[in-house]
Amino acid sequence: MSVIDDVAAELARLPGIGRKTATRLTYFLLRQPKGTIERLGGALQALGTRVAPCAQCGAWSEASPCEICADARRDSGTVCVVEEASDISAVEATGEFRGVYHVLGGHLSPLDGIGPEDLRITQLYGRVANGSGVREVILATNPSMEGEVTATYVRGVLEPLGVRVTRIALGLPVGGDLEYADGLTIARAMAARRDMVG
Amino acid sequence: MSVIDDVAAELARLPGIGRKTATRLTYFLLRQPKGTIERLGGALQALGTRVAPCAQCGAWSEASPCEICADARRDSGTVCVVEEASDISAVEATGEFRGVYHVLGGHLSPLDGIGPEDLRITQLYGRVANGSGVREVILATNPSMEGEVTATYVRGVLEPLGVRVTRIALGLPVGGDLEYADGLTIARAMAARRDMVG
Repeated sequence: MSVIDDVAAELARLPGIGRKTATRLTYFLLRQPKGTIERLGGALQALGTRVAPCAQCGAWSEASPCEICADARRDSGTVCVVEEASDISAVEATGEFRGVYHVLGGHLSPLDGIGPEDLRITQLYGRVANGSGVREVILATNPSMEGEVTATYVRGVLEPLGVRVTRIALGLPVGGDLEYADGLTIARAMAARRDMVG
Repeated sequence: MSVIDDVAAELARLPGIGRKTATRLTYFLLRQPKGTIERLGGALQALGTRVAPCAQCGAWSEASPCEICADARRDSGTVCVVEEASDISAVEATGEFRGVYHVLGGHLSPLDGIGPEDLRITQLYGRVANGSGVREVILATNPSMEGEVTATYVRGVLEPLGVRVTRIALGLPVGGDLEYADGLTIARAMAARRDMVG
């Protein structure tokens, strides 16, 4: 197998990129100015070696704790819980949230065999329980059925701790994906968050 | 700028990949099993360092001359001229062509400032003129206006040499792209090639 086939095969593993597109992208790269391929290759190498989950919140970061967890100007008493690390940039882009995050790493999905033990729920419980002053946990899982189920489950886990648990408002289109929502919708949904009760 | 932003920015340079898709792909890569990112990075590094144009035909290859030019079982007397190196695999996939190739590196396009000196036309003239026994040159440039103009121009350049110059049959949909045509259409168009006259 040639190097060209190799690159095309690796690119074809990416979601939304079929075999023909992957081959086309490979030839596109070969036609680019010298250094283009090396920059992409080098950036990927750095991604593989220097980026790891933050020990506290689980977000991908080059430092642990990550920049947000380490930022003294952020309110560490308000924790926004998201499904994926990529959801954080969507919330950050609104510029309206000054708390910190907790990444679950997905949502509960019994059909796919994903149970509570596969998500970072124990770590969240630990963060709230260890007396470091968490006053509110905002559940910003996706407004999908799985996201709702996950939010309800996490609320149940945190209930004994007596912390305020809120759910981001469902101003978001139901069945959608947090990552793709616009900033205004996310900001409004954050403002209209409600307490979760029994 | 973080490593994640770096990778997303480099991926966003690829055609058809916008900034949001690039970010999504980057997070997708981070979630893959260990080694996935390294394999893609390593393949790209090999692409940048080990792949170069064949000195004879101009195709991307890890060797020069390339595998096809070096293959004694191929008929070096029949040269198929294509616009891009990526067109070669489309013709090879038909399994019907046993000659060799010549990559022009594009097509004539005065509006984009691409003239004859930007294409590998002089090299093609040299291949035919040097007495190495080229009997036929098949012009398989794209069935677009630019491809037709380029074919006509190349025919004019080769005319003084007295070599047979044919044009791949326009059974291909006019305005299309050779790379995307199916094998049967390409094979039929090769079989129905005609002599180019006046």
